[in-house]
Amino acid sequence: MGAKIIHYSKIPINTFGPEAPGTSLRVLISDKQDGAPVYNLRMIEIESCGYTPKHQHDWEHENFVVEGHGQVFIKDTWYDLGPGSVVFVPPGVLHQYKNTGEQPLKFLCGIPTEKILSNRG
Amino acid sequence: MGAKIIHYSKIPINTFGPEAPGTSLRVLISDKQDGAPVYNLRMIEIESCGYTPKHQHDWEHENFVVEGHGQVFIKDTWYDLGPGSVVFVPPGVLHQYKNTGEQPLKFLCGIPTEKILSNRG
Repeated sequence: MGAKIIHYSKIPINTFGPEAPGTSLRVLISDKQDGAPVYNLRMIEIESCGYTPKHQHDWEHENFVVEGHGQVFIKDTWYDLGPGSVVFVPPGVLHQYKNTGEQPLKFLCGIPTEKILSNRG
Repeated sequence: MGAKIIHYSKIPINTFGPEAPGTSLRVLISDKQDGAPVYNLRMIEIESCGYTPKHQHDWEHENFVVEGHGQVFIKDTWYDLGPGSVVFVPPGVLHQYKNTGEQPLKFLCGIPTEKILSNRG
C-alpha cells in the first residue's frame, strides 16, 4: 500500500445514468485502488439543475462542499449548502442532493470501503 | 445517531502546542459527537510558515486541500500541495505538512474512528 499525491481533476470522471441527471463522480481514494483501510473518498460533481436520486442505503455519507451551491434533502427537510458546508448522513436515512446554482456543485463524499460494507452484510 | 448540517467555520477550533506551530484543528464529524461508523473528518488549518511535526503512527490519513499552498513530506520526499490536492498517507509512514504560502493552508484529514483504532490494538 503506497502513498498517493494527485490533483483531483486528474482522476477519471464517471457519469451516472438518467437516475442522476448532470451528476458525475471521481473516486479519489479507495480500498481497491489504494488499500484505504476504512473509507473511500469520492468527489461528486453536479451540473446546474442536476440532482441525485432520492434514496437510502445502509451506509453513511460524510460530505464537505468544495464549490458551488445546492441543497441536500435529509429525512424530510431540505438544507442549503455552499462552500464549506459539512454534512453527515447516517446509515438508512433518505437523502438527495441537488444543484440550485449556476456553477457546478462539487462536494466530497466519504463512504465505508467495499470490504467494510461486505462485512456489515 | 442524527444527521448533521453545519458550516465548518462554526465548529470550535483547537490549537496544537509548540510541536505544531501555527496549526489548529476542527473536528467536523466524529464517532463521539455524531456516531460516525468508520472515520472522523477533521479540518486542519496551518498559518503561513507553520508546520506539523514529522511523525508517524499506525493509522492512515486521507487528505483534500481546500485552501492555500503548502507541502507534504511522505517517507523521504516533499510534494507540493494546492487547492484540490488529494493525499493518501498509509499507516506507519513518516509524514509532515507545512504551509509554504502567505495564506492559511486548510485541508481535510480523515482518520479511523477511536472505536476502530482501539480495535486495531
